[in-house]
Amino acid sequence: MIVVKVGGGKGINLDAVTTDLAELNRAAEKIVLVHGGSYETNVLSEKLGHPPKFVTSVSGYESRYTDRETLEIFEMVYCGKINKSIVEMLQQKGANAIGLSGIDGRLLEGTRKDAIKIIDAEGRRRVLRDDFTGKVERVNLDLLNLLLGAGYLLAITPPAISYAGEAINVDGDRAAAVLAAALKADRLIILSNVPGLLKDVKDESSLITRVKKENVEQAMAFAEGRFKKKVMGATEALNEGVGQVVFADARIQRPISAALAGKGTVIE
Amino acid sequence: MIVVKVGGGKGINLDAVTTDLAELNRAAEKIVLVHGGSYETNVLSEKLGHPPKFVTSVSGYESRYTDRETLEIFEMVYCGKINKSIVEMLQQKGANAIGLSGIDGRLLEGTRKDAIKIIDAEGRRRVLRDDFTGKVERVNLDLLNLLLGAGYLLAITPPAISYAGEAINVDGDRAAAVLAAALKADRLIILSNVPGLLKDVKDESSLITRVKKENVEQAMAFAEGRFKKKVMGATEALNEGVGQVVFADARIQRPISAALAGKGTVIE
Repeated sequence: MIVVKVGGGKGINLDAVTTDLAELNRAAEKIVLVHGGSYETNVLSEKLGHPPKFVTSVSGYESRYTDRETLEIFEMVYCGKINKSIVEMLQQKGANAIGLSGIDGRLLEGTRKDAIKIIDAEGRRRVLRDDFTGKVERVNLDLLNLLLGAGYLLAITPPAISYAGEAINVDGDRAAAVLAAALKADRLIILSNVPGLLKDVKDESSLITRVKKENVEQAMAFAEGRFKKKVMGATEALNEGVGQVVFADARIQRPISAALAGKGTVIE
Repeated sequence: MIVVKVGGGKGINLDAVTTDLAELNRAAEKIVLVHGGSYETNVLSEKLGHPPKFVTSVSGYESRYTDRETLEIFEMVYCGKINKSIVEMLQQKGANAIGLSGIDGRLLEGTRKDAIKIIDAEGRRRVLRDDFTGKVERVNLDLLNLLLGAGYLLAITPPAISYAGEAINVDGDRAAAVLAAALKADRLIILSNVPGLLKDVKDESSLITRVKKENVEQAMAFAEGRFKKKVMGATEALNEGVGQVVFADARIQRPISAALAGKGTVIE
């Protein structure tokens, strides 16, 4: 079992990802896909006159400020445009795909943070209360097994659902890590619009190719911005028994096969 | 088994529909929901600078002209905003709902019309070729039974999928009719923002309360605009063995229970 997360950044080649996925699926590899939609959400938010806002928590992690209006835009892009486009591409390539969000059948469940402590633009601490974000803690494994057992290829997307039944924006990398752990996956492949974890974020040739599991905390020193959550997800997955995590490039042909062959940053 | 179709017109009370649905579901009534999203699609299309266009076929039926850009807006509204909002409301009300489009698992499959003959604004016949519309002909009954058997409440939305794997805009009423027939439903309830089939479309007190199955073709004489497809769907469902079709009001409290109690236009 492999869990593949494909980001929603600019330049990602979803056509190549779905072609590779459909081929691997045909070769009887069991795969679950998790996807993002960050860049397109920014574009739609701007068009609809509700520009994206990002906040930095006191512990230094960046996330999208998700009020109810943003959540609806988020769902339109993630669950509507991108999820259905991925399912359609997979169907055209012969894979019988089903797209699900985390709220469907309470597939991805967790706690909504009712208050987040952030550092504002002036460097002051503030508390945000109208934010619909949270963290995935539980997976509906029965639903996953029911559909995987019937031969469907699953394309899973945030939002998740809170215990109170609210849709919540959750980090896709960490959601993929929880899924990989619940499915006892051999590998978690995290694809984005860079070749992997870079020593110098401005230099794609500075790729870190191998990291030992026990050194993953040190690798965090090289992670910038949104990559911090990828490394955090990797750590969580490895701690929960996933055998290998690979950060790899989603802009190339056959990106999943390349990652399986060891291209990118391999952590094990 | 009951199939409920709720339209996407202005004024529809989705909160009341989902409250009623969750209660009936708790009382062990087997229900499948199909929903629309027409009004919200118009609103988003306007906002995104791609205003909605409607075309009238040579046989007199009106439908949304669905080029690829419209299809993406359609998916954002139907599969993203409305489907996930319905699933979230159902989850908050205690029903373990799953939202699926017709392309997921090829749930609703049919033929894309590669050319539609329309009457243009000047009354001339024209052929449209870049339209992604079609008609549902097949249902993935195995997938429906798998999820219904596991106790999930299903919220199903267009688009459907063509045999070639293209997402296609299909009429929701007729999709609900095909679903009702495939599930051998006792009843198909079609809720919209009017009390039922009206003798005079401008007078809500002119409700036709009962129509015998053999007179359903005559009822078509009273159907205007989008209601024509509702009557067509009703006819198709009854011909395929569905026991009763009710056209009822989705603007009131407990709209499904009211329809089950005989409020609206009952065809049997």
